[in-house]
Amino acid sequence: MLVNGVPGNSISIRDRGLLYGDGVFRTLRADKGKALHWPLHYLKLKRDCTALGITCPDEALLCAELDKVLAQHPDGVVKLIVTRGAGARGYTPSADVTPTRIWDFSPLPDYPPEWMTQGIKARLCNLRLSIQPRLACVKHLNRLENVLAAAELHDAQSHDHQLAEGLLLDADGHLIEGIRSNLFLVSQGKLTTPDLSRCGVAGIQRGRVMAWALQHGMALQVRDIGLEEALHADEIFIVNSVIGLWPIRELEQRYWSHFPVAAQIRHGLDRQDT
Amino acid sequence: MLVNGVPGNSISIRDRGLLYGDGVFRTLRADKGKALHWPLHYLKLKRDCTALGITCPDEALLCAELDKVLAQHPDGVVKLIVTRGAGARGYTPSADVTPTRIWDFSPLPDYPPEWMTQGIKARLCNLRLSIQPRLACVKHLNRLENVLAAAELHDAQSHDHQLAEGLLLDADGHLIEGIRSNLFLVSQGKLTTPDLSRCGVAGIQRGRVMAWALQHGMALQVRDIGLEEALHADEIFIVNSVIGLWPIRELEQRYWSHFPVAAQIRHGLDRQDT
Repeated sequence: MLVNGVPGNSISIRDRGLLYGDGVFRTLRADKGKALHWPLHYLKLKRDCTALGITCPDEALLCAELDKVLAQHPDGVVKLIVTRGAGARGYTPSADVTPTRIWDFSPLPDYPPEWMTQGIKARLCNLRLSIQPRLACVKHLNRLENVLAAAELHDAQSHDHQLAEGLLLDADGHLIEGIRSNLFLVSQGKLTTPDLSRCGVAGIQRGRVMAWALQHGMALQVRDIGLEEALHADEIFIVNSVIGLWPIRELEQRYWSHFPVAAQIRHGLDRQDT
Repeated sequence: MLVNGVPGNSISIRDRGLLYGDGVFRTLRADKGKALHWPLHYLKLKRDCTALGITCPDEALLCAELDKVLAQHPDGVVKLIVTRGAGARGYTPSADVTPTRIWDFSPLPDYPPEWMTQGIKARLCNLRLSIQPRLACVKHLNRLENVLAAAELHDAQSHDHQLAEGLLLDADGHLIEGIRSNLFLVSQGKLTTPDLSRCGVAGIQRGRVMAWALQHGMALQVRDIGLEEALHADEIFIVNSVIGLWPIRELEQRYWSHFPVAAQIRHGLDRQDT
């Protein structure tokens, strides 16, 4: 793959991405040689870099690199990592480092297509997300909480192979997100999504759902959500750039079988993709 | 330096240490070809690996690699990183990855020697540590909070170049640690160090001070400490494996000039080094 524009699959052991998780990343869907929603991904990358005080690489430079990746791998999952770069010892980020740009590719995961229409089984993780307003929303490389939650889900999957996602509460008991997805509730035709000002990752598919709701006059609230509220919602669904949109059909002994609003939104988002 | 036993200075872009900060590290002092307190470092490495579910490399293997590093670099700072290894896409840690072992070296920083005896000026950081009991004590690679705090300290140093360390409170206002050090208070001849069960890194020098206190019949408490209590302590000092022990002579408009207990402990620890 590409590292700083050059074919390669390694980085320096002094890269701050490794040393401290000092960087951000994007996971994008490549479809017929096109990176879906690239402008949104770049905007988010830039915002996340700013949150960490990393100089975001120019869009033209990244676009040129992305084109090289897509020429080789027109369909699948493209990952872009931008780290602060390789620097001197110590936590202090020196101003004169050049950010590292890393592109990688993997095939599209082979998820059962019925998960999109009939929904998935999800599970509440025991791990609670910590509250850190300075890093909230940012898709940075400090992802140990996700790793621990994914390990927990993996253990649960050995007893129940239908489990497809774990949902995460924060330390205060608010429902925040899925391990690798953002979350929406539908209640009486209205959408609600968790407030991510204290923890969580604000993904671009979340932004797309919110934009769609605004455009289509669907009421939308961004606020704290408790587990009980979620369990009593008419629909719950999760989104990310790889899976698209999956409704939840089972969570904590609650069952759902109809997802009209989720289906409407999924069709709406799909239409924008073409 | 060494990567998995082979001279090299790069790792795979698919290493989970980079992708998720999924690993742990040690910073050790090399002195005349000897790694100080290696047994304590290995014990801590093993404990930290266990906390993340990483299989800790055998001590014999690491010792052989360490010997190679010390043969080339007998004096300075040795860093050892152990990551979960390179694996498939996604947060889930698969069982069949081999941990990556990374050794790096840097010269001993050139700190003013009087900081050991006359103390340093420290500053309270605005950044608050988040509370995550699952990761507390562990020296893992998710260090963005330290990076943000170090950036804050660096900004403050541009106005006040005497500042040598930043102290960190957690989200609840408890004093936890320095950006790169652990912290002790001395009050009426008794030692107190912050409880690190919810956040912070429990370094091996902290353990050494605690062991020294026990051996020498000095009362020691591990508990929550508020800022006010710290500002009214008879002495405050910080420790880590590179700096050793530094008393604090100034913090938040409070001044200290005598550090008899800190000096006693520093001498005690130094004697163990020889």
